[in-house]
Amino acid sequence: MSTIGPEIERLVQLLARLPGLGPRSARRATLELLKKREALMEPLAAALRDAAAAIKTCGICGNLDTSSPCALCRDPRRDAHLLCVVEDVADLWALERAGVFRGRYHVLGGALSALDGVTPERLNVASLASRVAEGVDEVILAMNATVEGQTTAHYLMDALAPTGVKLTRLAHGVPVGGELDYLDEGTLSAAFKARRSL
Amino acid sequence: MSTIGPEIERLVQLLARLPGLGPRSARRATLELLKKREALMEPLAAALRDAAAAIKTCGICGNLDTSSPCALCRDPRRDAHLLCVVEDVADLWALERAGVFRGRYHVLGGALSALDGVTPERLNVASLASRVAEGVDEVILAMNATVEGQTTAHYLMDALAPTGVKLTRLAHGVPVGGELDYLDEGTLSAAFKARRSL
Repeated sequence: MSTIGPEIERLVQLLARLPGLGPRSARRATLELLKKREALMEPLAAALRDAAAAIKTCGICGNLDTSSPCALCRDPRRDAHLLCVVEDVADLWALERAGVFRGRYHVLGGALSALDGVTPERLNVASLASRVAEGVDEVILAMNATVEGQTTAHYLMDALAPTGVKLTRLAHGVPVGGELDYLDEGTLSAAFKARRSL
Repeated sequence: MSTIGPEIERLVQLLARLPGLGPRSARRATLELLKKREALMEPLAAALRDAAAAIKTCGICGNLDTSSPCALCRDPRRDAHLLCVVEDVADLWALERAGVFRGRYHVLGGALSALDGVTPERLNVASLASRVAEGVDEVILAMNATVEGQTTAHYLMDALAPTGVKLTRLAHGVPVGGELDYLDEGTLSAAFKARRSL
């Protein structure tokens, strides 16, 4: 598409790399942006620049926030004796939207995968053991119900067993093969309430 | 979602306003951006800022480009006696991808709609008549096959009839109710070649 020009072409290509947008919808989005330059395009450029500069990874739990420790780790109303381990920040957001958990989180940053070469060393696992040793009563393993998620949960069960901490997992309300971020609040809530001892 | 923080929340809300992205996919896109800060987020911020500053509307045809007149209007290899009238820049891009037209364009910036209050005065119509008067042999009315598009085509037929210019419309290869930007190259090509005199 030589007639588009390099500035627009570059924008289309970058937008097409976002999940949920293909080449065609990226072109539509680009046109929408060019039509709403002051109302949408410039604010989005500023929001991206601001967020890129301001957002950091929490040194305790791995959440994304403007401060480290993050707002969740600093909140004294949240139960520090309850730890919910998730694969990704998207899962943390999904559980927060469901509003069923009032403890602290631990974000692994992925799931174990031999295929993709994701080993325990590449996940936020080492600090989990030290957090558990600091006086946690229960660790909820809230991995996705995928092969990788369940492999990760089994690995963490074995790794944390020596500490004697109570380990639970989400109830089988989570559909097999599904991912937390795509579940409705009701299913997440039910799964949280029916969590079982391991 | 109070736990997300205002910087991230603002980014999610702006992305959710893009066509093709809803609240959920905007959250996924935001996380992807935060994970690929240097490779994706900062380049996208820069591309948006650069395009917002550089891209203008062509004073002749209404196309979007870094210069006015645009590259298409300045191209001496394109036949200035053939004028293809489209509703939107997206339609111009779609026809250029099909590569069947080597004349000039005229972008209306929309279609007539009593419901949305789009009158001829709000479209790029006045300059069309003066372009036609400057020696155009044929005007191809390449509107969408929607009620608004066909209303616009009929309006332009009536408006341009006194000039005596040859008026054509795309052949009925365009599916009724469909929009140009969603068609495959083959259909667009067939419709272009079978265009009929009005």
